[in-house]
Amino acid sequence: MAVNIIKIGGNVINDEVKLKAFLASFAALSGDKILVHGGGKVATKIAKDLGVETEMVEGRRITNAEMRDVVTMVYGGLINKKIVASLQSLNCNAIGLTGADAGVIRAHKRPVKTIDYGYVGDIDSVNAVFISSLLSQEITPVFAPLSFDKDFGILNTNADTQASAIATALSGVHEVNLIYCFEKKGVLLDAEDDDSVIPVLKPKLYEEYKASGVIYDGMIPKLDNAFDAVHKGVKKVIICEANELLSAVERGETGTQILM
Amino acid sequence: MAVNIIKIGGNVINDEVKLKAFLASFAALSGDKILVHGGGKVATKIAKDLGVETEMVEGRRITNAEMRDVVTMVYGGLINKKIVASLQSLNCNAIGLTGADAGVIRAHKRPVKTIDYGYVGDIDSVNAVFISSLLSQEITPVFAPLSFDKDFGILNTNADTQASAIATALSGVHEVNLIYCFEKKGVLLDAEDDDSVIPVLKPKLYEEYKASGVIYDGMIPKLDNAFDAVHKGVKKVIICEANELLSAVERGETGTQILM
Repeated sequence: MAVNIIKIGGNVINDEVKLKAFLASFAALSGDKILVHGGGKVATKIAKDLGVETEMVEGRRITNAEMRDVVTMVYGGLINKKIVASLQSLNCNAIGLTGADAGVIRAHKRPVKTIDYGYVGDIDSVNAVFISSLLSQEITPVFAPLSFDKDFGILNTNADTQASAIATALSGVHEVNLIYCFEKKGVLLDAEDDDSVIPVLKPKLYEEYKASGVIYDGMIPKLDNAFDAVHKGVKKVIICEANELLSAVERGETGTQILM
Repeated sequence: MAVNIIKIGGNVINDEVKLKAFLASFAALSGDKILVHGGGKVATKIAKDLGVETEMVEGRRITNAEMRDVVTMVYGGLINKKIVASLQSLNCNAIGLTGADAGVIRAHKRPVKTIDYGYVGDIDSVNAVFISSLLSQEITPVFAPLSFDKDFGILNTNADTQASAIATALSGVHEVNLIYCFEKKGVLLDAEDDDSVIPVLKPKLYEEYKASGVIYDGMIPKLDNAFDAVHKGVKKVIICEANELLSAVERGETGTQILM
């Protein structure tokens, strides 16, 4: 049976009601599953409360030493452990992980070119053997968006990219579905019309939509990640709304499916 | 070979030089090992920075919902993941855990009697099978002082007690040494004389020292924990200074040994 790797972002994490509904639905999913979460908005809020300034460049957080402490606390501690505890209460045997734990996600600090992102990681490898050993014990890994560099320690990492890297690594051993939960029901033909979900997106159509401007801005890196994953062996990527998770996974009737 | 379970507290965690030296010594220890850390002083500082007031009763932190968020972040995130990353950089394959992760430390919220401690846990059980499975994969568990209650979620837990509970649970399967790292070289006959370490402490002598006032105050709960552990099957408990760890463990020539 396929392993479902599900990524949730701020629109779910910051909304207690949505998060609760999502986690109940996630806990109820049968079979092997992995959760990857973001949490940038909570990090920004706590950084502000601690007097640490948030600086973003092209949607990416500049992570100096102080900000690294904040994201380590918030992603690896507050958000991750709250999710793990909620899942445990729902009888889902979750374990929280950062890339440093059991050295499971190795990365290197992004080299400084025009922009110094600070302690930000680009992933080199994912230990699929360790993750598989957890799955075989019916343990559900819950990943914070943090990777590990032997020379620099914990590195802040984009959660979409981390989910894609985990999915790709596991696809060597398992059949893998990668599901990005999103604020919309899928990739939209018309950004103003929530019901204009594109049901299936393949490389040729994606290129056409990019060329014609139907797909633009923040959707492009997200879809590039998605296509990268299917190119590297992930069976399919689904982009859907968090509360449509179950049907998306079980019937493939909702959201946008990204296929080769 | 014995499993060494080592507990470090604030005097090591708050001192970067001491912590670095300790972690190098810990990483170099051969055989199975487990680290349990505290971190109360860091939690108090970050709570203050976030405008959350710290209230202590008899050395225990009152943990309301806001304070629980702080200790979840600080113990489970900041301190735990920094230690894990440092150990990984030292080629020690560490994994950070709270009691919620894989449901490894189950507790119940302390009932309100005269004092309402809030989200504070008294440990019911430790999953020795899961911990053993990590050790058998040569993975070193690093525990934050947080336990888990299915009804209440993450609970703040005394690190000494947590170390003792883990040691006791594992003593059913392994030979276990429990080592409390401490600001002194051991239990002292004379609090003013750092070289007056009591080499061996057995129950009869302990009772005598308590009666005569040689052992008093904060040492009593610590030693009660220690004797409780040896009564329940832990081979020996050693109380020593963090930077004497290696010799304490390997030769038993330093610190105070608590024996039946």
